[in-house]
Amino acid sequence: MNGAESLVHTLLRSGVEVCFANPGTSEMHFVAALDRVPGMRCVLGLQENVVTGAADGYFRVTDRPAATLLHCGPGLGNGLANLHNARRARSGIVNIVGDQATYHRPFDAPLTADTEGWARGVSGWVRTAAKATEVGSDAAVAVQAARTAPGQIATLILPSDTCWDEGGAVADPLPVPAVPQADPLAIRNAARTLREKRNVLLLLGGRAVRAGAQRLARRIEAATGCRLLAEGSNARMERGRGRLQLERVPYPADQALAALKEVEHLILVGSRAPVGFFAYPGVPSRHYPESASVTVLARPEQDAEAALAALVEELGAPEAAIPDPGPRPEPGRGAPTPEGLARTLAALMPENSIVADESVSFGRGFFRESHAAPPHDWMQIMGGAIGCGLPLATGAGIGVQAMRDSGGGDRRVIGLQADGSAMYTLQSLWTQAREKLPVTTIILANRKYQILLGEYRNVGANPGRTAMDMLDLGNPDLDWVRLAAGMGVEAARAETLEACGDLLTQSCARPGPFLIELVI
Amino acid sequence: MNGAESLVHTLLRSGVEVCFANPGTSEMHFVAALDRVPGMRCVLGLQENVVTGAADGYFRVTDRPAATLLHCGPGLGNGLANLHNARRARSGIVNIVGDQATYHRPFDAPLTADTEGWARGVSGWVRTAAKATEVGSDAAVAVQAARTAPGQIATLILPSDTCWDEGGAVADPLPVPAVPQADPLAIRNAARTLREKRNVLLLLGGRAVRAGAQRLARRIEAATGCRLLAEGSNARMERGRGRLQLERVPYPADQALAALKEVEHLILVGSRAPVGFFAYPGVPSRHYPESASVTVLARPEQDAEAALAALVEELGAPEAAIPDPGPRPEPGRGAPTPEGLARTLAALMPENSIVADESVSFGRGFFRESHAAPPHDWMQIMGGAIGCGLPLATGAGIGVQAMRDSGGGDRRVIGLQADGSAMYTLQSLWTQAREKLPVTTIILANRKYQILLGEYRNVGANPGRTAMDMLDLGNPDLDWVRLAAGMGVEAARAETLEACGDLLTQSCARPGPFLIELVI
Repeated sequence: MNGAESLVHTLLRSGVEVCFANPGTSEMHFVAALDRVPGMRCVLGLQENVVTGAADGYFRVTDRPAATLLHCGPGLGNGLANLHNARRARSGIVNIVGDQATYHRPFDAPLTADTEGWARGVSGWVRTAAKATEVGSDAAVAVQAARTAPGQIATLILPSDTCWDEGGAVADPLPVPAVPQADPLAIRNAARTLREKRNVLLLLGGRAVRAGAQRLARRIEAATGCRLLAEGSNARMERGRGRLQLERVPYPADQALAALKEVEHLILVGSRAPVGFFAYPGVPSRHYPESASVTVLARPEQDAEAALAALVEELGAPEAAIPDPGPRPEPGRGAPTPEGLARTLAALMPENSIVADESVSFGRGFFRESHAAPPHDWMQIMGGAIGCGLPLATGAGIGVQAMRDSGGGDRRVIGLQADGSAMYTLQSLWTQAREKLPVTTIILANRKYQILLGEYRNVGANPGRTAMDMLDLGNPDLDWVRLAAGMGVEAARAETLEACGDLLTQSCARPGPFLIELVI
Repeated sequence: MNGAESLVHTLLRSGVEVCFANPGTSEMHFVAALDRVPGMRCVLGLQENVVTGAADGYFRVTDRPAATLLHCGPGLGNGLANLHNARRARSGIVNIVGDQATYHRPFDAPLTADTEGWARGVSGWVRTAAKATEVGSDAAVAVQAARTAPGQIATLILPSDTCWDEGGAVADPLPVPAVPQADPLAIRNAARTLREKRNVLLLLGGRAVRAGAQRLARRIEAATGCRLLAEGSNARMERGRGRLQLERVPYPADQALAALKEVEHLILVGSRAPVGFFAYPGVPSRHYPESASVTVLARPEQDAEAALAALVEELGAPEAAIPDPGPRPEPGRGAPTPEGLARTLAALMPENSIVADESVSFGRGFFRESHAAPPHDWMQIMGGAIGCGLPLATGAGIGVQAMRDSGGGDRRVIGLQADGSAMYTLQSLWTQAREKLPVTTIILANRKYQILLGEYRNVGANPGRTAMDMLDLGNPDLDWVRLAAGMGVEAARAETLEACGDLLTQSCARPGPFLIELVI
């Protein structure tokens, strides 16, 4: 058995069953091993940021790490931005990066690069395999690292001779470390604050925005009168009827400062204290009052739901019903507005949909209008590196297929996708077509970097010609119907919410991908 | 004057007149400064690998560094692969990377990443600006570094407060270090080898494949009977009638070993001793005989043409005519073959065309058939990170416009572009449309990663279903006519060389971009 075969066997035995791939010459022995050893589903992406973003989406939906297969330092480089987003989402991923043979590296052949150095900034665990006999055990450690709560990026760099040399040994799965529990003292401290203080904010993040944790948070809210809020961005929030009507910390600094100005005590549950996405002159970096106390109930890597359960017990908080969000909204009508589109979505999305939200400026008001939607999951861009949404939806689609094959039901993935961000990773659409993924993408075509136009005006002026050349996506307009068709995805343009709603409904009734270019 | 304004003024005074850009929030003050200070041509790319690859193409055509404008670590990450290629091409580029404000960085906001760490692997010079008062002088040093022979990548990271704070000071251009001259001893050693030994190979790389150096190399060849060869990849080779009929070291290891097996003495002129692009089991890393002596006439950063002139003088080598390449070929006919397409190109390309060659497997035979083309430049992918060709052609197009505006003639850029590689950076087409660039792209649509299929077969087997899923680009086929149209570039499909030739001729008679999908 060569090193590559020991790798495939070890990944499969450790429960890694999907490999998002864009291989190159140095990975051919691994590709050959994937061919010979059955069991791994290999999904090709035509650029590596599709590959890494899809692995992120897959983890968010399944809570299971996928592997990626990347080609040398530059292949990893192409996928760094979505690995950055995945790191911020705390997703588990096992990157396999092929590289020059150990003895060939000193010759500095053209593709030689600082693969390890580039990997470090996004990985919780990095190793370069030294020989074929150790590749199996290296892989088992990589999967263990990726599965370590809440999820980590593990990068295993494979010099090509460690793949083709004989002597590979399959390694047994390593135990996944138990999820660390919150400190009992932290629970007592939080309980004391909640009992004794006013203007307490319980800020939920990570796994604390899943439905089970929400029910516990609701009991604490009902028993103590504290306020609940979610972080500004969330890897996967469970939403809709039967879930809390959680709002998020707003993105714009002025709105965030206003939303948090009454907070006297901040309790973090799998979240981080809110800071500005960027600094602005004269605006504080912290978005909560400097005078507020900050208590950690559960750090992001700790078991947030168990911590909330312990807190419920400590407080003796009785059962509390999740408030009714009111009737399901009617679809929006007429010209697209953020609120109207949110209502259309809430009205028409199938139960258990998964929304991949990279709507950027147009989507900030979605939540308020969509609490009465059927139960659904909502995934957001976590690291701010745009080009996340289409790959995320792609990986979620693979995750849905994997779960359906093991007994889960049909779920539709709905991408809310700003056009400027979509252009970063439009190659995702081809993978959606090839794999016949249940994904409907709504391109929010405003034909500009709208968020930057707003930021530019904050700088104090209206943009002139040079600035507009960098902020405007018109001249020429992108034609998303043609772009999608060029990659085998059926598509149509909508200029009204009614047309958008009709297309959404039709697309959800079919198995494969569809794209709606919504001109806004 | 704020830091950003001092930066724009300093770049302009240092002769940097083009900025390839994909800005974000942290760069808005720089964008505003570009708006207020006239003189910089700003070219938007819709993904950063377009931006960095275009800066590479601009340098290769003009020998002048452009600036790039990138957004935080992930924006740099997206552009790393083509910076890797640019580093291998020894292109001068000034990267401006906006980042979190100095005082905001400790808060680890979502977009915070290891910007400096990622920059290091591709940059000859990296600095993070510390305050607004120093941004001007930092920028002057960056341009100096980028202009240092043969060309370097300089990366200046700009925390946003160093842009918006007042106190900016414009810096004078710094002197560009003189191009280092070859060691006189190296010239005498090379002359001795050439006079006394047999089977001497003069291997030309870097600036030694420009026309002036070629004429000198020809004199040495004629006087000593040595052999001339170019490196396997070349940043910009001057070719066609009136230039040497230089062949290159072949890419496939067996062909390279065969081509070099008689070499007893290797003299490097701006080149590196040939090694395998990748290692293969049982194949030596060095592609020249172990017994061969290796002499450096000029290192890549030294003045190769002056070294050749000194060598000519040392040898007393008389003038020697450049051999006639024979008649201009007739265009190819019928079904596309590599040789037929090369003849079509040689027959129909306008004088002084610039070929951006990322043809990968289909293009290896181009040279042999195109020596009798009119004079033209030939640019290749240098670092092996695919996705280089379309951005390179885009930047070359901007370079052609810049040189035309300062008195240069019209030149056409012709992209020879493999389809798999094209998908990496297809966003380039939009920039070509917006800027009305004189670029004709010929997509070589074989609908597979052909090079990898060959590599897979080298591993010893025919690919099964899993492997084909990762090597085949069909299912669904990409439709390049629609993809191009979706980005505003007119396009047509050709299935014969006659149709391809007609479209090539028509496109060269028009000012803007055109794309030909050649089904091969």
